[in-house]
Amino acid sequence: MSVADSAFLRACRCEPTDRVPVWFMRQAGRSLPEYRAARGPGSILDAIRQPELAAELTLQPVRRYGVDAAILFSDIVVPVAAVGFGVDVEPGRGPVVSRPFRAASDLGRLRPLDPEADTGYVLETIRILARELEPLGVPLIGFAGAPFTVASYLIEGGPSRDYRHTRALMADEPGLWARLLETLAELALASLKSQVAAGVSAVQLFDSWAGALSVEEYETSVLPASRRVLEGLAGLGVPRIHFGVGTGHLLPLMAAAGADVVGVDWRVPLDEARRRIGPGRGVQGNLNPTTCLGSWDSVEAEARDVLARGGGVGHIFNLGHGVLPETDPAILERLVRYVHEQSPAVAAPVAETG
Amino acid sequence: MSVADSAFLRACRCEPTDRVPVWFMRQAGRSLPEYRAARGPGSILDAIRQPELAAELTLQPVRRYGVDAAILFSDIVVPVAAVGFGVDVEPGRGPVVSRPFRAASDLGRLRPLDPEADTGYVLETIRILARELEPLGVPLIGFAGAPFTVASYLIEGGPSRDYRHTRALMADEPGLWARLLETLAELALASLKSQVAAGVSAVQLFDSWAGALSVEEYETSVLPASRRVLEGLAGLGVPRIHFGVGTGHLLPLMAAAGADVVGVDWRVPLDEARRRIGPGRGVQGNLNPTTCLGSWDSVEAEARDVLARGGGVGHIFNLGHGVLPETDPAILERLVRYVHEQSPAVAAPVAETG
Repeated sequence: MSVADSAFLRACRCEPTDRVPVWFMRQAGRSLPEYRAARGPGSILDAIRQPELAAELTLQPVRRYGVDAAILFSDIVVPVAAVGFGVDVEPGRGPVVSRPFRAASDLGRLRPLDPEADTGYVLETIRILARELEPLGVPLIGFAGAPFTVASYLIEGGPSRDYRHTRALMADEPGLWARLLETLAELALASLKSQVAAGVSAVQLFDSWAGALSVEEYETSVLPASRRVLEGLAGLGVPRIHFGVGTGHLLPLMAAAGADVVGVDWRVPLDEARRRIGPGRGVQGNLNPTTCLGSWDSVEAEARDVLARGGGVGHIFNLGHGVLPETDPAILERLVRYVHEQSPAVAAPVAETG
Repeated sequence: MSVADSAFLRACRCEPTDRVPVWFMRQAGRSLPEYRAARGPGSILDAIRQPELAAELTLQPVRRYGVDAAILFSDIVVPVAAVGFGVDVEPGRGPVVSRPFRAASDLGRLRPLDPEADTGYVLETIRILARELEPLGVPLIGFAGAPFTVASYLIEGGPSRDYRHTRALMADEPGLWARLLETLAELALASLKSQVAAGVSAVQLFDSWAGALSVEEYETSVLPASRRVLEGLAGLGVPRIHFGVGTGHLLPLMAAAGADVVGVDWRVPLDEARRRIGPGRGVQGNLNPTTCLGSWDSVEAEARDVLARGGGVGHIFNLGHGVLPETDPAILERLVRYVHEQSPAVAAPVAETG
């Protein structure tokens, strides 16, 4: 089967499929022994800069799990790191910034991205993967961090619980905030366009931490920049997935920002999420990743429910957030098999899910 | 004015008031210099065991801010600590448990609470406060931790990001989970009944971390125990406030559990929260506590919006979560004044809020 006709891309377009496609956020990574063997220690950014290695890490979960899509092995801070902002990714902690963004003068540290010159290694990885995946009929997903989530790392200097500096800048210096988010939107858009040109078949915009915001904050101060990214990709023929954690209250806005598919965490059932998102868009999710730390019986019970509520058409099965490092790969293997075996009954409108 | 006729208690009953009452979760605590002076170092549990000191710490924010309600200086782990489970509260970290709850044999470590014998100091604090607050017309709020949130501390051994052990127990050992939650419900109910008998005028059930759960998990595995607590208080004549963080998706269920007032964090606007909760119940909230770390202009703008969306009647102004330790007390002083000055216009249906 061709990539364009794959279950994943058909589901993104809300076309009928013979099965519900499945992939996992962070499917490449620390939960896989072959990942730990191939990668060794050191910053994830070093691994991303080696196209052969990054391509191998991207392919590992496709081989092991038989997932319906590969996601580029990369990180949301790659573009800002590539233009020299001074970001690293600490294993087990996440992005850390030595000199956080605090004033207008810091905007000068975020020059425009020249994708070939600055992130040629990413594009080379994509070209390798496109060649490898084409004969398998497996699409490759590219991605970027949404302006708010990237801004939160640049401003807080690392992961945060309450985003206090970010929210203070947003509230107290709205002009500077808007310029920062526009700048980050242009970086994300340039990166995503170059990924599409190099061969990815879909893109996901990660606004992982937007769920910390109120509806009004999101609508006023965040949505315009995310829309700039997503609408800038319109007409390129690649589905746009938009995802964040704890965003039940933001789902209608995240859809309106220009998403073809809205990613949903485990808190809101997919049938309810669809009601909030409205017709004509796909949903992606939403098994709780901590469930995968428990018994198979729990995973199966939740997966059955996710499939039933997902409604078959326009549903991409995924976890509600990334695979946890402690996850037993055998559980995910079994989960992919389960989704593939069970989903024809869901995809076709047979009265079997009640 | 009598306590029974105070703006706070009237608002809890959805009766008209001359102003929107305001208090702050964690109004007593590290953000106040007089708190740091009175309390000194050491575990918060030691301070709670000293009635004169605990009463003083409860009164400090009433004096400084002129808030419309006092909340007992205590902690949600007091009952489980009092029956000897082995819990302490580390400054800056929160509850820590040396031997976490993992198996049926741990149920034996949670004997029933004898409020006078086990937590006589709490009741003595309440009696002191009832005497002090009565002439001021200021009601005292008692509280307890909801079964899920207390269980999460007992099982995880401390604060958690993903509640993985808690969710594993919930999913894989539903019988044991139900017994644990029933046991914790009985502890919370015994504590709250004793607090009411000693003189509190309202109670708040803190299910701070329930927002991590899906709608179905909450409804199946958590709501029955919370309902047991809240319905066990019916007919005692004290309003029951039910609060958690990130619970936008759970608001209808948290109301249905038996709340007279539903506490809302900052993510969902109060007008939308009211739609989800339905008529006949009050709402409490919901200014973002991090906003109070910024400029007064930001606080004022958000407070105006909260008052407008709160709709006046049946609204208790509060933050969307506890006061952050770094908060400037001058901001909260000004905020109380602002709410009191502005709210008559809101409480009466005058077209002034557009």
